Amino acid sequence: MRVLGIDCGTERTGFGVIESDGRNHQLVSAGVIQTSAKAPLGVRLQEISREIRSVIARDLPVAAAVEEVFYATNVKTALKLAHVRGVAMLAISEAGLELGEYSPLEIKTSVVGYGRAEKRQVQVMVKSLLHLDQPIESEDACDALAVAVCHATHSAIRRKLEGVRA
Amino acid sequence: MRVLGIDCGTERTGFGVIESDGRNHQLVSAGVIQTSAKAPLGVRLQEISREIRSVIARDLPVAAAVEEVFYATNVKTALKLAHVRGVAMLAISEAGLELGEYSPLEIKTSVVGYGRAEKRQVQVMVKSLLHLDQPIESEDACDALAVAVCHATHSAIRRKLEGVRA
Repeated sequence: MRVLGIDCGTERTGFGVIESDGRNHQLVSAGVIQTSAKAPLGVRLQEISREIRSVIARDLPVAAAVEEVFYATNVKTALKLAHVRGVAMLAISEAGLELGEYSPLEIKTSVVGYGRAEKRQVQVMVKSLLHLDQPIESEDACDALAVAVCHATHSAIRRKLEGVRA
Repeated sequence: MRVLGIDCGTERTGFGVIESDGRNHQLVSAGVIQTSAKAPLGVRLQEISREIRSVIARDLPVAAAVEEVFYATNVKTALKLAHVRGVAMLAISEAGLELGEYSPLEIKTSVVGYGRAEKRQVQVMVKSLLHLDQPIESEDACDALAVAVCHATHSAIRRKLEGVRA
């Protein structure tokens, strides 16, 4: 299955598309949507929405996944991020994609095998899981790929369990 | 100027369109976008986005206004609401409308003349300001009209001040 992962942010939104059977993952595309720092939020949301839609149209994922929004550190930042997340979820829903939502703990556990893994460990594991020669430089794109890997893995397990139950 | 006010909510999003010169306000349309209670957030956002776009296409406002999101009471509710607000701001921005953002205090002060006014007082004043025979029944639609009146009033004052400065 082809999965789009999105790492939402008002300034930089990472995206990553993988092709995966739940165990073997291949990189399709990855990048960062950088919005104009001085632009009002409405314009930024427009930029983010346009880019996500164009990635979906180009790479044709059948599923997408986003991180759950949490507010342990800064409520104002979390509220801004929720605006972006709403716009991302709208684009995903409009495209008719299956949507997965995962906590940072679930994503790290799925990718590194350890829920409190550091950024660097996620980067190393994403490189390894996608058989890349070089690590993904952008932290946002790497986090987006981690979300995609998490969803592909969870989906495969869910399908297997449904097979057992059937 | 024709102004669209939006009162964001995941279950019910109010909207109200007025025609106003900043002092005299007339009702154009008002209503509530009710989303399917059991639908996932992505589907709800799609419903809200579609309805807001269709109101803009039908009533052709030149400006829109939304309430600032605050989180005094419940952060989880505020975070959900911010998803809807992001989608509303996207629709407004895509339509190329001027966007105003106001705190509940500013809206109540503008409509009732008192920042701590109660729902009932807002309802009475919206009825009076729009020369209606009956108060707007839906609280969400009424709040949306209050946001629109607030923006029309502020815009007129801003234009006047710019005239004085010029």
